[in-house]
Amino acid sequence: MSERAALAELAKRRGFFFPAVEAYGGVAGFYVYGPAGARLKANVEASWREQFAVREGHAEIDAPTVLPEPVFAASGHLESFNDLLVACAECGETHRADHLLEEAAGVHDAETLEPEELAEQLAANGVTCPNCGAPLADQPVEAFNLMFETSIGPGDGAPGYLRPETAQGIFVEFPRLAEYARGQLPFGVTQIGRAYRNEISPRHALLRVRELTQAELELFHDPADAGPDLAPVADVPLRLYPADDQGDGEPAYRNLTVSEAVESDVVANPWIAYYLGRARQWYERIGVDLDRFRFRQHLPGELAHYASECWDAEAEIDGDWVELAGIATRGDYDLRKHDAHADDDFTVFREYDEPRTVERATVEPDMAVLGPAFGPNAPAVADALADLAERDPAAFEADTVTVEADGEPVTVDVADANFAVETVVERGEHLVPHVVEPSFGVERAVFTVLAHSLREDEVDGEPRTVMRLPPAMAPTLVGVFPLMTRDGLGERARSIAAELRDAGLAVEYDDGGSIGRRYRRQDEVGTPYGVTVDYETLEDDTVTVRDRDSAAQRRVPIEGLAEVVRALRDGERAFDSVGAAVADA
Amino acid sequence: MSERAALAELAKRRGFFFPAVEAYGGVAGFYVYGPAGARLKANVEASWREQFAVREGHAEIDAPTVLPEPVFAASGHLESFNDLLVACAECGETHRADHLLEEAAGVHDAETLEPEELAEQLAANGVTCPNCGAPLADQPVEAFNLMFETSIGPGDGAPGYLRPETAQGIFVEFPRLAEYARGQLPFGVTQIGRAYRNEISPRHALLRVRELTQAELELFHDPADAGPDLAPVADVPLRLYPADDQGDGEPAYRNLTVSEAVESDVVANPWIAYYLGRARQWYERIGVDLDRFRFRQHLPGELAHYASECWDAEAEIDGDWVELAGIATRGDYDLRKHDAHADDDFTVFREYDEPRTVERATVEPDMAVLGPAFGPNAPAVADALADLAERDPAAFEADTVTVEADGEPVTVDVADANFAVETVVERGEHLVPHVVEPSFGVERAVFTVLAHSLREDEVDGEPRTVMRLPPAMAPTLVGVFPLMTRDGLGERARSIAAELRDAGLAVEYDDGGSIGRRYRRQDEVGTPYGVTVDYETLEDDTVTVRDRDSAAQRRVPIEGLAEVVRALRDGERAFDSVGAAVADA
Repeated sequence: MSERAALAELAKRRGFFFPAVEAYGGVAGFYVYGPAGARLKANVEASWREQFAVREGHAEIDAPTVLPEPVFAASGHLESFNDLLVACAECGETHRADHLLEEAAGVHDAETLEPEELAEQLAANGVTCPNCGAPLADQPVEAFNLMFETSIGPGDGAPGYLRPETAQGIFVEFPRLAEYARGQLPFGVTQIGRAYRNEISPRHALLRVRELTQAELELFHDPADAGPDLAPVADVPLRLYPADDQGDGEPAYRNLTVSEAVESDVVANPWIAYYLGRARQWYERIGVDLDRFRFRQHLPGELAHYASECWDAEAEIDGDWVELAGIATRGDYDLRKHDAHADDDFTVFREYDEPRTVERATVEPDMAVLGPAFGPNAPAVADALADLAERDPAAFEADTVTVEADGEPVTVDVADANFAVETVVERGEHLVPHVVEPSFGVERAVFTVLAHSLREDEVDGEPRTVMRLPPAMAPTLVGVFPLMTRDGLGERARSIAAELRDAGLAVEYDDGGSIGRRYRRQDEVGTPYGVTVDYETLEDDTVTVRDRDSAAQRRVPIEGLAEVVRALRDGERAFDSVGAAVADA
Repeated sequence: MSERAALAELAKRRGFFFPAVEAYGGVAGFYVYGPAGARLKANVEASWREQFAVREGHAEIDAPTVLPEPVFAASGHLESFNDLLVACAECGETHRADHLLEEAAGVHDAETLEPEELAEQLAANGVTCPNCGAPLADQPVEAFNLMFETSIGPGDGAPGYLRPETAQGIFVEFPRLAEYARGQLPFGVTQIGRAYRNEISPRHALLRVRELTQAELELFHDPADAGPDLAPVADVPLRLYPADDQGDGEPAYRNLTVSEAVESDVVANPWIAYYLGRARQWYERIGVDLDRFRFRQHLPGELAHYASECWDAEAEIDGDWVELAGIATRGDYDLRKHDAHADDDFTVFREYDEPRTVERATVEPDMAVLGPAFGPNAPAVADALADLAERDPAAFEADTVTVEADGEPVTVDVADANFAVETVVERGEHLVPHVVEPSFGVERAVFTVLAHSLREDEVDGEPRTVMRLPPAMAPTLVGVFPLMTRDGLGERARSIAAELRDAGLAVEYDDGGSIGRRYRRQDEVGTPYGVTVDYETLEDDTVTVRDRDSAAQRRVPIEGLAEVVRALRDGERAFDSVGAAVADA
């Protein structure tokens, strides 16, 4: 069984995730995080927030998921956020044309092809509909916009869209966010939230869904800056797969530290290098297997048109490399677009080191002359004179100047233009900041952590399935089990569970089935510690604590139990340092 | 200035919340939580999760916000989730008819009126369009469905809706959730997430928005159970405003503890009483002023048709009572609806205390006789016989029985029905659980906490604005300020800020402007503690810590500072117990 299939089965059975609305036949591309998955996801998100917002001192915002059309007209999503689809004339099924070509004809990088090229290649390769087998040779390949559309307000309403990325919710609020940062670059703004993509063919469980969660950081900086202080991540080792090394054979990786990657120019932008280091630290913390992890640079053809450099974090699952995150330069593309389309100012004021004295040519045309001379064209003539003064002040050294107004050349006496050169002192200039964007998919992180944590091993000669999640990520930190429910063991166990919960720990009480079966259940859901209440508990107020990974047990006093479990979780204590060895184990 | 207006101004200036997409002219009913607001909201949500999921041992799920149409056909939202609107023929502006009538004509409870009644009353009261002043007398009042509609998948797609409440995402997954709970009642499932209502007239900032966040708990229980153990909340005092006491005069409240409320039958359902206690504890923890807080029972006319009892948590703002949460019985309404519409089974199996021996009447009609006799109607006749046997076994004591099939009476020989009475042992029965739902609006909680925390007072004879948030809710726990940036004070302060961040605390470093101005800024955003690095710091490795509410200062060693601040936040230490009095204060 593939890793994906094994995980999907366990995920449904143990409440990590499952397809949504199955009672009504399901709806492709929508998943529910069950009780275990929702806690895991919340832990992953909290850890991301801690790493990329709190510790870095960045702001986090929480913006709407529904945005009005002008935002996406400016950002370019309305025109370009498309996939190419081909519909089967026979059965009506729609397919993503590039994926179909890649799968059916083994073509690489079909994603970069134009609609006509895709249609030609589908025909040339004799690709047929995977659903009904009809040939797709004569079917057109058409662009399909992946945004979910809706309508805001009563009546016909105004068109709105579910955001396809959390980023635009940050960019569009830049003028106010820059105020909060008091106009000082660099500053970062993060957001964790839903994004929506009306995928043509959702698949691979959580890996390609229509409703997803993104954790994004937009780092606004001055393109002239020297980059961040790399010291905190300088020695973090990176497994890099640069664009130049991506051929057909076995990948040859460059194993470099963050500082080596910058010095050797393998990673060109130091902001990107910094976040590659932070990303690696984070993926390690949440439980991704770093032996199955790399950073792959985008090939020139893959890069978004506004990006000069992009590295994807990738993880291996079932032999495939899955994109987990992208760390890219977005330049000033987004802010420039919004600056052009919106009413507000999307710049910051950059002060010069020293004020600069500059000469500025101005005109103040005599409208008493221009008015009668040019009639309704007079204001256009005045504007053209002002433009010329700025562009080519020398032109005003003659007696007359000729400018174009409303498509016609007109000649004006320089005397009537009131040309002058002023000396002004400029304190600085307005700058559209550049953006570096580390963008993380939460579903993909959760899925990879689960896939990499799922193991089959043996305990006491019996095979078992165990989810070896890092304790800080586990949905339940501690399971509490009475050996049996009678003789007051059940009540005692319930009261211990309540105490642990009061200490803020995630606890599950379970008295159903044999103790071995209860251990297995918690092993599968990744619970790192199990507390068992037995007859000895009634005598000496101790319990056994079981370690998920080793299945070893220690006898620990109930007094201080919450603190012991918390210390184990946080790695402050080793398991065999707590309590005493279990006598009868 | 009203509380609302003062808050809206400060909220925008200090980054709590502001209208979304103002650069493009805004879009009514959508707000952005800025850096301060997003952290406050995250703290409020984490606190809710802690109280209503973790400590109670309830599961939390995270389900899609987009759901397909059949879910809302079953839940009744497609037909009934409407507000009534009236459009102005003159200017085209649409208005919520009931609100208009209440505001323009002082009519109470207009929400309960039917469309025709509303239209009549608008005419009778001569209500005009608030936008252009045209009379609305001849305009129809029409139902407008408040769900945002979209389309799922390529081509024409399938109709889908943004969920109007998080609850349906839980109900529709009940079959699987019951499995996770191993079919044992009671069990609770929570969800915190977005919900969407395409309001006709969004208003009052965060109090009536189109995209909101709900925190809901669905408690599934056996209607025959005795209710929860009230002990943990028995003594929690409640200010109750029962339906019977709601007249026109000044409200007369019943001040009862949870246990008194149940014993006196003021609160009929003990599950509701339990959650009233928990809700009050939670609102106190997040910073709602309990002197401006009450629980108001729904009047009979206000109750949803499926609810037998509902209490709203309400807070006073600007003299108005604002609904913060509703704690209601939903009976078996939702699960029954999904059970009828969907393929899966929405029941749990309730085992009897002892197996019961029951007699069950059955028929096994002889189709060799019925087929020729009734042709295509024969199966309907057989079904009708089976129904009759279950309903009225005595009818089979005669020689013939008469049943109705396809609207026609038909008579069958009892001999051909093969009537028999079997004795069977039943272990239990299938039960549709009942639901008690505590449903909380996160925006309203956040808004109320801010409104109740905002104070004007005086420090050193100067007026100041201070946001007295509970430390555990504050967006920033500690501000770090160098007295000035020169002489190494700036570097020292930055390194202290970094250390505090490494300890997981929310920190803001600020070196802009006078120290007094920086204190004021943090006072306005609710930061409970300020750490100032001064020249003494360079000599003895101490800093001053300032308390937001009293503006008092203590001199504290840098060593252990994070632990001191954490202990202050968690209420483990009193402010005047840390460090030493400030010599020159």
